[in-house]
Amino acid sequence: MTEKRIISIGRQFGSGGHSVGIKVAEELGIPFYDRQLINKIAEQSGYDEKFIQSMEDSGGAVKHRLSYFLMGRDNNGKTIDDYVWDAQKKVILDLSEKGPCVIVGRCSDYILREREDVLSVFIHADFDRRCERAEKRYGKTDTPIDRRVKDMDARRQARYEYCTGRKWGRAENYDICLNSGRLGIDVCVSTVLSLVKESR
Amino acid sequence: MTEKRIISIGRQFGSGGHSVGIKVAEELGIPFYDRQLINKIAEQSGYDEKFIQSMEDSGGAVKHRLSYFLMGRDNNGKTIDDYVWDAQKKVILDLSEKGPCVIVGRCSDYILREREDVLSVFIHADFDRRCERAEKRYGKTDTPIDRRVKDMDARRQARYEYCTGRKWGRAENYDICLNSGRLGIDVCVSTVLSLVKESR
Repeated sequence: MTEKRIISIGRQFGSGGHSVGIKVAEELGIPFYDRQLINKIAEQSGYDEKFIQSMEDSGGAVKHRLSYFLMGRDNNGKTIDDYVWDAQKKVILDLSEKGPCVIVGRCSDYILREREDVLSVFIHADFDRRCERAEKRYGKTDTPIDRRVKDMDARRQARYEYCTGRKWGRAENYDICLNSGRLGIDVCVSTVLSLVKESR
Repeated sequence: MTEKRIISIGRQFGSGGHSVGIKVAEELGIPFYDRQLINKIAEQSGYDEKFIQSMEDSGGAVKHRLSYFLMGRDNNGKTIDDYVWDAQKKVILDLSEKGPCVIVGRCSDYILREREDVLSVFIHADFDRRCERAEKRYGKTDTPIDRRVKDMDARRQARYEYCTGRKWGRAENYDICLNSGRLGIDVCVSTVLSLVKESR
């Protein structure tokens, strides 16, 4: 296989995909991009950073695929989301050109799908494990954790499917999918690192 | 994680999952069950071996989920397929009790889902790669290879979804999913072996 220079990590909310990404980047000594992508997408699109963030993880983001079709379109037939998507693609393609790195989420598996030097990873875990992990990480709020995890799942799925035309969570979208709940975060990290090293 | 004694391998037709399974079993020095399961299921269910085989991979098998609901039922409300499914579950559970082994397909991921000592693997690959591999392995026939691969996909999906109630090909059904087209068979084998060894 071609040497894997870029690691794209898709993840279910609460699965620990972010932690896997950080550790892989640290071990390989390469840059890590997760929420940092938001600043870059904001800069590229001209929209406010807070707005981009709200599209991702707050009540401002649309939850259902249908909502995307009901959004307003400008004279070019494009929605705000289309412009954000264009910026997102450009940011991720530019980063992957710049050099080795780890990119978390933002449909990077799809955006980089043609590149042979990308290792495309998906981290998932059982629902209960994800709730437990998410509550530990993000704390308690008035909304019960299972509701928050389900909402985030729905939003990520809707945006992924709208932007990529692919079904979210299907094994065939990725080179490797790992269940962090059953295998543990450290084993996910070592498995990804082995693949990267084996490709060299 | 718990020591992984049983390796269950689900696979897309033409992905090389069978080869991955054989090599893993050889390396670990443990029994390998793929088509051998057919004899055992035939014996357990009392149906003819050829009939069981035809349900799996010939024109005799049903291709669409709907067909299952149209099948005849006996006084217990069970179809022939239900009886085969009962036998299949018993055979696979018994084998997993007997000792370490590699089991390919037959919904073994689902049947063994409660067991912590099972490593549940799914091998997949791009459609074109699978066609190429399947033609090399099974030879040419009057039916074009892309048609044969699509038919087999449809049959496996229908049977999996009818028996398990799960969506076929979803990452979350497995501990690890590997794209053999992008990673190569040998890397799939070494990745599975590493996980087994890491669990000890």
